[in-house]
Amino acid sequence: MECNVPTDIAFSFSGFAMRGGAKGPHADGWGLALYEGRRARVLLEPTAAATSALARHVRDYPSKTLLAVAHVRRKTRGTASLANTHPFHRELWGRSLVFAHNGTVRHARTLPLGRFRPIGDTDSEYAFCALLAALERRFGDRYPTRPTELWSAVAAIGARIGRGGTFNFLLADGSHLFARCATKLCYVVRQSPFGLATLADDDVQVDFAALTTPGDRVAIVATAPVTRDEAWVHAESGTLGVFRGGQLRATLAS
Amino acid sequence: MECNVPTDIAFSFSGFAMRGGAKGPHADGWGLALYEGRRARVLLEPTAAATSALARHVRDYPSKTLLAVAHVRRKTRGTASLANTHPFHRELWGRSLVFAHNGTVRHARTLPLGRFRPIGDTDSEYAFCALLAALERRFGDRYPTRPTELWSAVAAIGARIGRGGTFNFLLADGSHLFARCATKLCYVVRQSPFGLATLADDDVQVDFAALTTPGDRVAIVATAPVTRDEAWVHAESGTLGVFRGGQLRATLAS
Repeated sequence: MECNVPTDIAFSFSGFAMRGGAKGPHADGWGLALYEGRRARVLLEPTAAATSALARHVRDYPSKTLLAVAHVRRKTRGTASLANTHPFHRELWGRSLVFAHNGTVRHARTLPLGRFRPIGDTDSEYAFCALLAALERRFGDRYPTRPTELWSAVAAIGARIGRGGTFNFLLADGSHLFARCATKLCYVVRQSPFGLATLADDDVQVDFAALTTPGDRVAIVATAPVTRDEAWVHAESGTLGVFRGGQLRATLAS
Repeated sequence: MECNVPTDIAFSFSGFAMRGGAKGPHADGWGLALYEGRRARVLLEPTAAATSALARHVRDYPSKTLLAVAHVRRKTRGTASLANTHPFHRELWGRSLVFAHNGTVRHARTLPLGRFRPIGDTDSEYAFCALLAALERRFGDRYPTRPTELWSAVAAIGARIGRGGTFNFLLADGSHLFARCATKLCYVVRQSPFGLATLADDDVQVDFAALTTPGDRVAIVATAPVTRDEAWVHAESGTLGVFRGGQLRATLAS
């Protein structure tokens, strides 16, 4: 979720969490990163979101943010442990960088990692470390002054690391949400005029018209649509979407 | 808290959290890092622990760990924001390193930070980055093979960074808890025979004899005693305590 005004994650997270073991097979861990400025706080559990008391806490208490990344895990490689639970996060450029991945990465263990060391043993965390190392090689120790150069770099590095694998990912830096589509990714931008939305995996409905003001914009990006009555756009394979201010600002080949 | 068997943090955290705004002035944020192996999950809020729903969640649901670091903040410098909330954490050597500080550091902004960049603007986070940078300079990109060399390095670097200030800190690396006493620090080791303990700031009592087995050892380190009927040891100024396996393994000049 990436927005232009602080927005409660509860509704979208609620439907999403159902996929973590109740309505989906992704029962091997869940995580949620919530940004406040440049730092993210990251809730993680190596267990099913659908039955987690902490995930229920997130649904029950409003938690407003401009930028959040959530993940439910179905393990393909690595064990179900905290170390292997997405999203992964590291400090770079005095910011929390947060990463979640759906798919597999080929030859992940041979990628150059620079100064970043995986804590767990998933190919996803290796790929994240390689992505950070490549960004640091490109831009040094300062956040890029021209955002579009960062966009292009994420697209190019994502393409390189993703070659031959399925590198669907979300990457957040406190200002942007980058969403790479290798095989599966979709998004919706909620904006005026707001209407009703019903969760795809649950019987919960919300009337955004009652909760928003006309200038609000909220982009939701997910592997599969989270609601059943909104106009989800399916991203094309080999593209990187750049979200900022609740808008899709650019789509780059990746 | 540092233990030789996974131990529930709820009791100690419960009394501790009271200091975050109810029985103490430390109402500007709280945080709790819970290790599982080499990775820590870190709960953070830039608000008072005493009235936090998330802190209540921690107290209400058992959360067992071998190593945890908690902090309640009374701000002296920097605003009450997520970026300034302790504990701070970074990856080094493929581990989460976690740091909490009570006091002030002189000339924090002039310390060499290596590749680590503060996200917030507290002297504490600058000091943590400087400590990590010095450890990385000393040991390179691998976790030290001789633990005692790490102990000595933390003591020496802590003394250097703390010169002229009040550098009481907790540093955890997934295997150790390091506790530096500049002015105020105390600890207790709970071990057989276990007995009753009553929280110093609350009316809660627990009978550890009913919850433990004879081989269990739990070290609790805090600025001030958390319970009123246990034999807390007050550390000496200018020392670093090294806890591992629920024991004080060494006390070094620092």
